[in-house]
Formats: sequence, structure tokens, C-alpha cells
Amino acid sequence: MKLFDEDLQVLNVGLASFAAAIVDAGGKASQIEWAPPAHGNATIGRALARLVNHQDVEAANRKAYAAYLSSQPILEGIGLAKTTIPGMGRRMLLHAGPPIAWALMCGPMQGAIVGAIILEGWAEDAAGARKLAESGKIKYESCHDYGAVGPMAGIISPSMPVWIVRDGEHGHRTFSNLNEGLGKALRFGANGPEVLTRLGWMAAKLRKVLAVALEVSGPIELKPLIAQALHMGDEVHNRNVAATSLFLKRLAPALLKSKASRSDVAEVVGFIAGNDHFFLNISMAACKAMTDAARGVRLSSMVTAMARNGVEFGIRMSGTGARWFTAPAPLVDGLYFPGYSIADAAPDLGDSAITETAGLGGFAMAAAPAIVNFVGGTPDDAIANTTQMGHITLGRNGGLTLPAMGFAGTPSGIDARRVVDTGICPVINTGIAHKEAGVGQIGAGITYAPLDCFANAVSALAADLPADRGG
Amino acid sequence: MKLFDEDLQVLNVGLASFAAAIVDAGGKASQIEWAPPAHGNATIGRALARLVNHQDVEAANRKAYAAYLSSQPILEGIGLAKTTIPGMGRRMLLHAGPPIAWALMCGPMQGAIVGAIILEGWAEDAAGARKLAESGKIKYESCHDYGAVGPMAGIISPSMPVWIVRDGEHGHRTFSNLNEGLGKALRFGANGPEVLTRLGWMAAKLRKVLAVALEVSGPIELKPLIAQALHMGDEVHNRNVAATSLFLKRLAPALLKSKASRSDVAEVVGFIAGNDHFFLNISMAACKAMTDAARGVRLSSMVTAMARNGVEFGIRMSGTGARWFTAPAPLVDGLYFPGYSIADAAPDLGDSAITETAGLGGFAMAAAPAIVNFVGGTPDDAIANTTQMGHITLGRNGGLTLPAMGFAGTPSGIDARRVVDTGICPVINTGIAHKEAGVGQIGAGITYAPLDCFANAVSALAADLPADRGG
Repeated sequence: MKLFDEDLQVLNVGLASFAAAIVDAGGKASQIEWAPPAHGNATIGRALARLVNHQDVEAANRKAYAAYLSSQPILEGIGLAKTTIPGMGRRMLLHAGPPIAWALMCGPMQGAIVGAIILEGWAEDAAGARKLAESGKIKYESCHDYGAVGPMAGIISPSMPVWIVRDGEHGHRTFSNLNEGLGKALRFGANGPEVLTRLGWMAAKLRKVLAVALEVSGPIELKPLIAQALHMGDEVHNRNVAATSLFLKRLAPALLKSKASRSDVAEVVGFIAGNDHFFLNISMAACKAMTDAARGVRLSSMVTAMARNGVEFGIRMSGTGARWFTAPAPLVDGLYFPGYSIADAAPDLGDSAITETAGLGGFAMAAAPAIVNFVGGTPDDAIANTTQMGHITLGRNGGLTLPAMGFAGTPSGIDARRVVDTGICPVINTGIAHKEAGVGQIGAGITYAPLDCFANAVSALAADLPADRGG
Repeated sequence: MKLFDEDLQVLNVGLASFAAAIVDAGGKASQIEWAPPAHGNATIGRALARLVNHQDVEAANRKAYAAYLSSQPILEGIGLAKTTIPGMGRRMLLHAGPPIAWALMCGPMQGAIVGAIILEGWAEDAAGARKLAESGKIKYESCHDYGAVGPMAGIISPSMPVWIVRDGEHGHRTFSNLNEGLGKALRFGANGPEVLTRLGWMAAKLRKVLAVALEVSGPIELKPLIAQALHMGDEVHNRNVAATSLFLKRLAPALLKSKASRSDVAEVVGFIAGNDHFFLNISMAACKAMTDAARGVRLSSMVTAMARNGVEFGIRMSGTGARWFTAPAPLVDGLYFPGYSIADAAPDLGDSAITETAGLGGFAMAAAPAIVNFVGGTPDDAIANTTQMGHITLGRNGGLTLPAMGFAGTPSGIDARRVVDTGICPVINTGIAHKEAGVGQIGAGITYAPLDCFANAVSALAADLPADRGG
């Protein structure tokens, strides 16, 4: 009976209203925030319980994470998609995110496809292109299924140039298209004459000049370059000004030594110097090389891809191979350009979340305090985001360190189990496209991967576990 | 008598041993660190007391600081010292720091002078050059007296190329020599054939190519460039990797459009791309332009220059014009290259502390957490240094902001009164030269301006005050 004689000391876990009632009645209560995993879904909770601390899962994750850590992405060259990407068909278009049919695609992705069809010469104008696009004669495939990644709409057509990145440690190759710059760009769904003219120049001139320059420079190791950019305020997703400058500093002497004509060199240097996001696509291919190194480890709950097609957000996990786990793509609460708001925005779009999957982008925001001018928030938020991602990742990447956090490695190797267990979802820095085709970028901001993707992934992984013995 | 019945509550200001004695006897005492201004020198203390909160001094400082804030340093061009720097004589050598005679100079400065004499063709070899150097036939002058600044030994000889920076707001010009790169370099006292060959190339080729490129690019505004570099991890004293990259990104397209030959462009781009400190000298000239804007305001205690000749550390103050206040130059406690220690070091050397005078370098260390790999300490120390400098400065420069401190402006406008009052001395990030001529750089680190410079400056300024009325 002593309990009733003493002052009540209450620690309330979960629903805050219980604690509030005690405080309202004049008592004292400390509130601990907690919610049951997977929004209280019992099936997923049970799947999670089987996976947590399971020695086979732990061993698989150690193996997958070690492979990611040892990856050495190297920029090897540049080529045309049709002759470079294995399996790329003649009437095929690659797009960002998990697979999706034409009729279901968001506005900017359809807009980009219309542009790509005209670029390829498969149709004369937008009307003809749209007709062809919905005719069933074009094969649409996910970039990720072809070792590729593309920002925003992520359209890669056969005659577009692509970066070629090789993992020097494990040997696999990844690809990405080339960055067009900000404003009106195909990746944001714009497809007007100036967009197509620039893409034509990129395929003809830019590709050739960069190819001869890379022959002179030789392969460029990307991890040290990204590591240096992290020390210069980039997170190599939405901030690439340092990485682009470092890349240009590496490339310019090679360009000048190459056989490219002086006017071509001037044009190319001017183009790269005028686009602080030029390195983004190289960063993405490097990140895919790093996460692909961790693919296919049976029972590993490490996330190997996060990608959005503007309708669905999808993730892949090492232990479940090429299977996508999807949920509706969220809208992005960000900084909108004057005249636009969230009402104008397409849902989250693009393969660029591969940077977060590799521990960069939003996960490395502590390296890039100045990015808050672009995506919103304060420098303290940037550090808080990185700190929080430490709760859902397998380790710290000692090759990619963050000065503002005492040179700790960036949190990396998203563990789907921990996402579901903590309810902390991966943070993503992203650009925002207008929801209608042909408009372009209207802002940038921060969003979170949907919990359901991870819940479904955890559920699938648990099904692969051998039956519990005596449990 | 109540005092003796109560528990003793002690707040001890100053000498800690009083508090320690109470604690040792079982009592409680809180210690407040404090020391009398100017190490307890009563004369200086009285001078300080007259200056603190003096309305004329406050008004003068507001005027000087506003002039500093409004300065707009612009890189206008490049020229030869002899035809560019007003008053530069034919047999004159400029050096870093306050004026000093040959016989008193430190080893690296003498080494650099020997090299400059051979470079100018005034002597055939080191022995001849040394003989000429001590003959009295060479006029040695302080860079600062000619509107110039030079890092480390800071030797500027008549046929060296110099950057020309103009303050777009106030019209005055400043100058600096060109950065040779790390390792064996004249500024660290090295004077071997490879050093002189490079200096010859810089005067002949580099100067001409940069001159035509600057004609194409037009004048380059330096404050926005420096502001951007601060957002990319530079403090533009010992870390200039971002600023150099941004400068090259600006210059490369102009170089390619200029009439310079392709091989010359390649050589120059390669040289700049290979030297992450290339921007330092431009930064220094920009900083001198900003602090020179604050010169000559009667009764202002704002510091307008800090410079070291390797023997003496000197400062200038707005209210006392061109007069130097000096104290022995300190040794630098830093990170030494393998095989070297503080026993091998020359005392603090160079005009580069003009960056700290302008609120950059050590004052802006919060912008450059990665610099601790070069000068020692931790990223938290970097933020602490910037925070501490806020106690001795007149304001925050809103044009030069620090992301890690919530985009606060960098603390700037050193108030000599506050230095003496608080005992907090300006922090300086600096390179370290070997004490003997001809060796070169042996490390980098952090040092502090000597308090005595500021104490003497305060004393002199008080003497300019009108006699106290009725005080």
C-alpha cells in the first residue's frame, strides 16, 4: 500500500495524452516518445522481431556493408547509351524509379519522354511523340535494371551520352546521363527546342570532347574527390559546387592537352563552369557503384537502392535482390521558387536518392551547412539530420568524413529493420519538378522515404528466414 | 556577526590560489578567471580607462568599421612591380612585416632576398648576392608602406609580377606578389635554381597570360568570391582550395577566349590547378584593400594591419596611421612536417595576418573545420576561435558569413582596446618557415598576436585624446 502514500513518479511511454492527464491533475510525468514499429502492424512487428539480432541477418549485413565500404568507384569514360549500357534496346527508354507504365507516369516523366522521342527522331513533334509514347511501341524500363541512374525523370534514350563508372574493387559498371544544368531541362519534364538543342549538343560535342579529355587524364577515382567535396561544403546530391569545381580542375588540364579544338574546349569548359550541378550525375553513378557492391547478400537487410518515379517510391534491399518495395511517392515540403507552391509540385521523383542510399545527400548534410539556403532549415537541422540517420544505418564510412562532426564517417548502409523499428525514415535532399509536363524545376527541399517500403521489405526478408527452431 | 554563522559563499576573481585554499579547507568557492589589463601595467591600464567608452573613440571606430564594411575589393589586373607599385625603386626590395634592417632579418627573409637579387640579375650567385645584400646598396622597405602585402618573407622585387586590387568603393589600390606553390619557395627562404626558374617563368609567362585573361574576363569582384569560398570550407588564409577552384572556374573560360596560345593556357591552367594556395595572395590584397579603407580615422582604435617580419610582430591602428607598434614575433605551436620541430622554426613571419585583420583566416575558422588537419586542433576549436574573436572585434561582417554559426557574419574590426582589456589576443593561422635560409616550409599552425603591440597602441592613442576636462 506504500505506493499510495508516496508522490507519484510517472514515466509514460507512447501516447502522450496519458502523461498529459496526470500533469493536468497536478502530478508529475515524464513523456518518452515511442510508437510501435510499423504503425502497430502486428504481422510486420512479428517479422521484425524475427529479424532483429538474428545472427544470420547480422552476418549478412556485415558482409554487405563491408562490400559497400570497399567499393572504389572510378570514372572510366563516356559513351552512347545504345552501345554502352548492356541490354539497352533500340526503341527503349530508361526512366527513374521503379518500373511504371506510360499511362501511370507523372507529368514531368511523360514530358521528358516526349522530348526524348523527338530527340531520337522517332517523331517530328510533341503530338506525334505523345502518340508514339502511348502506342505500346516504346519499351519503358527502370534505369536501375540496367545499372543506370538518372536524376528526376531520369530518361536515358539510346543516343544520349552516359558516364561510365567502374567499381575498381568489384568490377561492376554503372551509368548515368549527363547533367543539363538548372532551369528548363529534360529531367524536369521540359522538352522545348532549347532543351532539345542542348541535348543534341551534349550528345555530339560534349560527349566527344569529354571522351578525349578522359583518355588524356586517365580514369578518375571518385571516392577521394567526393571525400574532398564533403570537406568543402557539398553533400554531392543537391550541392555539387565544390565537386564540380574539383572535377573541372582535374579535367581542364587534360582538355587542353587533348586533341579537341580550342573552341570546343572553350565551349565545354564554359558549360561545366556555368553549371554547379554538373557533378551530380557522376556522383549518382559513383553512389550506385558503391551500393551495388552490397547487392545480393542473402538475408541482408541493407538497402541498396532508393528511387522514385514520381508516383511510387521504391527501395531495394541486398537480401531481396532486384525486387522493389514500393509506396506512394510523397510530396516535398521545400523552398519553392517565386510563384510556385506545393500545389504545383509533382511527387518525389528521380534516382538521385541513390546518394542517400550511399550515405551522402541528406545523410551527409552535416558536411553542407550552406545547403539549407537551397533546401530549407538551419545548419543545426543539417547536423541533426545526419545525427538521426546514425540510428538507422549499419556504420560510418571512414572514407567519407564530416568535418563538422569531428571527422566522423558519414552514416551509411541503411538497415531496413532499424527504419521499421525506430520509425525514423531516410532523409532525402531533392529538387522539385512541376507536376505538369514541360514546365521544369519549381523548388528544392527535404523529404523522407515512406515507412511502408521498409515495412514490406522487412516482411519479405523474414519470409526467407529458415523456420524458427522450437520458437 | 551573522556572516560567521552562515555557510561561506565565495566568488573568487583572479588568482586561483585564494579559491583553492578555501576548497582545501573544506569550503566552497567559485573561481572567475580574470587578470588585470595589460598584465597589470598601471600606465596602460590608465590609458585604457580613458579610451573605453570614450564617445570620440566610439564614433571614430564606427566610422572606420563602416568604411571597412563598405569596401569592395576588385581584382583589376596584373603588372610588374616596378611599373605598378607607386614609389617602387629600381634597387628596392619590399619585405613582409614592419621595417627591419638586413643584419637583423631572420634566416628565411635573408634567403629570399638572396634569391630575389639573383633573380633581378644584380648578382651572379648566392655569395655575390649576400655581399650585395649587406652592402647597403639595396633599399629594404616594408610592403605595407607601398600598399603591398606578401606572404611569409614577402619579398617583392622590381621585376616580379603583382596582382592589382582596387577598392571599388573608396578607390585605393593594393598589391601582392603571385603564389609560387608549396614546398621549396622563395617566400619560405628557399632560393635554389628550381625556385628561381619558376619565378622567372611567373614573371615572363604567367603574368602575360593572366593579364590577357583578365582583359577578357574584366575585373573580378573578390568579396562575393571570398564569401562563396567561406561557404565551401575555406578561411582564405591557410585554406584556399575552394577559392582557388572558384577563381580558376572564372578564369579558365577567359583564358580560352584570350589570345594566349593553347600551350600557354595549358601551362597556366596546370600551374593554378596544381596549387591549392594560389588564391592566397589575391585574398591578402583583397583584405588589405578592406582594412586600408578604415585607415586614418583620428582616435579610432581599430587595427588596420598585423604583420610579421620573422623578428618582430607589428600592428597598425586606424587612429595612429602608419606607425607600427611592435613586439617580439612568437614561435608557432603547430603541426610540423616529419623530421622538424619548433626548434627548427623561424618566429612568426609574413603579411598574411592581414587576412585575420580583415576578419578572415583564424577569425573565420568556423567556416573551415577541415583546416584543423593542417594547423592542428579540432573542428570544435575552430568554432571556439571564431567565437572568442567576437569579444575583441567591432562587429560582424554581413557580407562574409559563416554557415556553421547560423550564417553570422565573421567577427571583424579588431579593437585594440578590447584586446588589452580582455587579454584575448587575435588568433592567426599561419605557415611555418625553417629558421635557416634556403630550407623552406616545415609546418603550419596557430599563433596569437602579442599583447604588447596592442598595449603600446592603446597607450599611444590615449596620448592623442584631448586632456580630460575635470577628470
